[in-house]
Amino acid sequence: MSVLSALDYTAVIVFAISGALAASRAQLDIVGFAFVACLTAVGGGTIRDVLLNRDAVFWISDPTYILIATLIATIVFFTAHLFESRLKALMWADAIALGVAVAAGAGVALKLGQPPVIIALMGVATGCFGGLMRDVVCNEVPLILTQGELYASAALAGAIAMITASYLDFTPIYSYISCAVLTFGLRAGSLIFGWSLPVYKSRPPRF
Amino acid sequence: MSVLSALDYTAVIVFAISGALAASRAQLDIVGFAFVACLTAVGGGTIRDVLLNRDAVFWISDPTYILIATLIATIVFFTAHLFESRLKALMWADAIALGVAVAAGAGVALKLGQPPVIIALMGVATGCFGGLMRDVVCNEVPLILTQGELYASAALAGAIAMITASYLDFTPIYSYISCAVLTFGLRAGSLIFGWSLPVYKSRPPRF
Amino acid sequence: MSVLSALDYTAVIVFAISGALAASRAQLDIVGFAFVACLTAVGGGTIRDVLLNRDAVFWISDPTYILIATLIATIVFFTAHLFESRLKALMWADAIALGVAVAAGAGVALKLGQPPVIIALMGVATGCFGGLMRDVVCNEVPLILTQGELYASAALAGAIAMITASYLDFTPIYSYISCAVLTFGLRAGSLIFGWSLPVYKSRPPRF
Repeated sequence: MSVLSALDYTAVIVFAISGALAASRAQLDIVGFAFVACLTAVGGGTIRDVLLNRDAVFWISDPTYILIATLIATIVFFTAHLFESRLKALMWADAIALGVAVAAGAGVALKLGQPPVIIALMGVATGCFGGLMRDVVCNEVPLILTQGELYASAALAGAIAMITASYLDFTPIYSYISCAVLTFGLRAGSLIFGWSLPVYKSRPPRF
Repeated sequence: MSVLSALDYTAVIVFAISGALAASRAQLDIVGFAFVACLTAVGGGTIRDVLLNRDAVFWISDPTYILIATLIATIVFFTAHLFESRLKALMWADAIALGVAVAAGAGVALKLGQPPVIIALMGVATGCFGGLMRDVVCNEVPLILTQGELYASAALAGAIAMITASYLDFTPIYSYISCAVLTFGLRAGSLIFGWSLPVYKSRPPRF
Repeated sequence: MSVLSALDYTAVIVFAISGALAASRAQLDIVGFAFVACLTAVGGGTIRDVLLNRDAVFWISDPTYILIATLIATIVFFTAHLFESRLKALMWADAIALGVAVAAGAGVALKLGQPPVIIALMGVATGCFGGLMRDVVCNEVPLILTQGELYASAALAGAIAMITASYLDFTPIYSYISCAVLTFGLRAGSLIFGWSLPVYKSRPPRF
């Protein structure tokens, strides 16, 4: 298994957990869990593959991803009550998935020889769109819109780290790891310590 | 006309009705009716075609679908007040369309020789995404999220019925019919008799 | 630079402004501004390119679009407080972008030799979907749903003007201009003078 597939599998697993937890908050049945888990798990990568015009979307050429996401959804359906706070668990699963998915998305664009801007964007899109679809479908406020938290910013920083690492001729696996670790680290710092960039504040008040 | 086109046409007509009814609830003008009707009518099939990388999206190679959806939207614009409850009419149109669209989606994947997991997913996606887009765009709570109702579950059951039927060497038309009838039957049973799968209930209460 | 690229650039700039203004209303940080600006700026054109199965999505073959949208987002981040009403500025930026994007969308379909129905739809989709994604992601009520305003209707009228102009053998640039001017004019008339088509009104009251 290539490093890129390993990243895709990991992102699928952790995003599926976050999707199933969102389904539990919407009180869906087990098929609803599987639906939201699959949507979240493969959403970002699907957009990446369609935009890059790859021969086949990754989970169509290898349906194992879907089976894994469905399995995860089933497990979460029977165990979600064990989490002390499902919202907290959802946020952390999402944070891990974000890190891994940014690396997976940027990695594919890098391998296809895309220019840096596109690599950065594919990383951010792969990382952010799965969670965004989950939140829109489940009627939650999108995590990406949470004020005063790093989210798209963490993803962008990670993608830039990967581009830099690959220009410095790191072996791919180290580029991927530096990207995933930086993205997750910034997001985790934001969740724990409240790290953030200054947000737009209107003066005079909001219209 | 092939059976698959017939299914696509039927799904387009009934989804267009449901889309126009949603537009009537949002009090749009006649072009807004046409917009939502077209989006609902071809949304699911478009996602199927883009994901499966077909040569052309079905309504681009044959724009008749769009003309039909627009015509339906116009008719509904002038007749929607005749329905006793537009919400009820919307739900039943959606239920019929769901059944037919699952068969149309799964049928295309079957014909392309996709594995069972992908056939099931294309059925569910074709059936569910048109209605999901309609509900997101019209700011309604997505029908797929309604607690204690069969929706994605009905679609999945129908798709599995089709896969089973085709393994048992039914002629395609009987596979399609068994799929559409089972999906619609389960959804109708859910609307009339309250059939449902157990939903996730949190203990302790929801966070 | 071809006329069509010029239209794409203009639409990207003005949609990016509207996206960044929506981000300012959601009080995002600077990367959030860039995310929403890029999504709004290239969203409609991306859907057009994916549906028409073009070799590459326009901003992937030329990432300048993304750089421009990001630059605009940065400028708006530091200057949005200068607008007297950001909501009003957003609506006018959106109106200009709508006009230009409809022309850009219909123009590409025209050049690819698509039939009139598809040309009209590509115009409407390119014009409307960027703003629709912006509004869904930012949790605003979609402008396209505002009651008693011309929006999809203005886009459709513009697209029909372009088709007519090209049948009358206007040179492309005049077809594009008539389309953009008519779309913007109708939308502007709707914002200033309240021009509208009759909306659906239920009798008896809404269910």
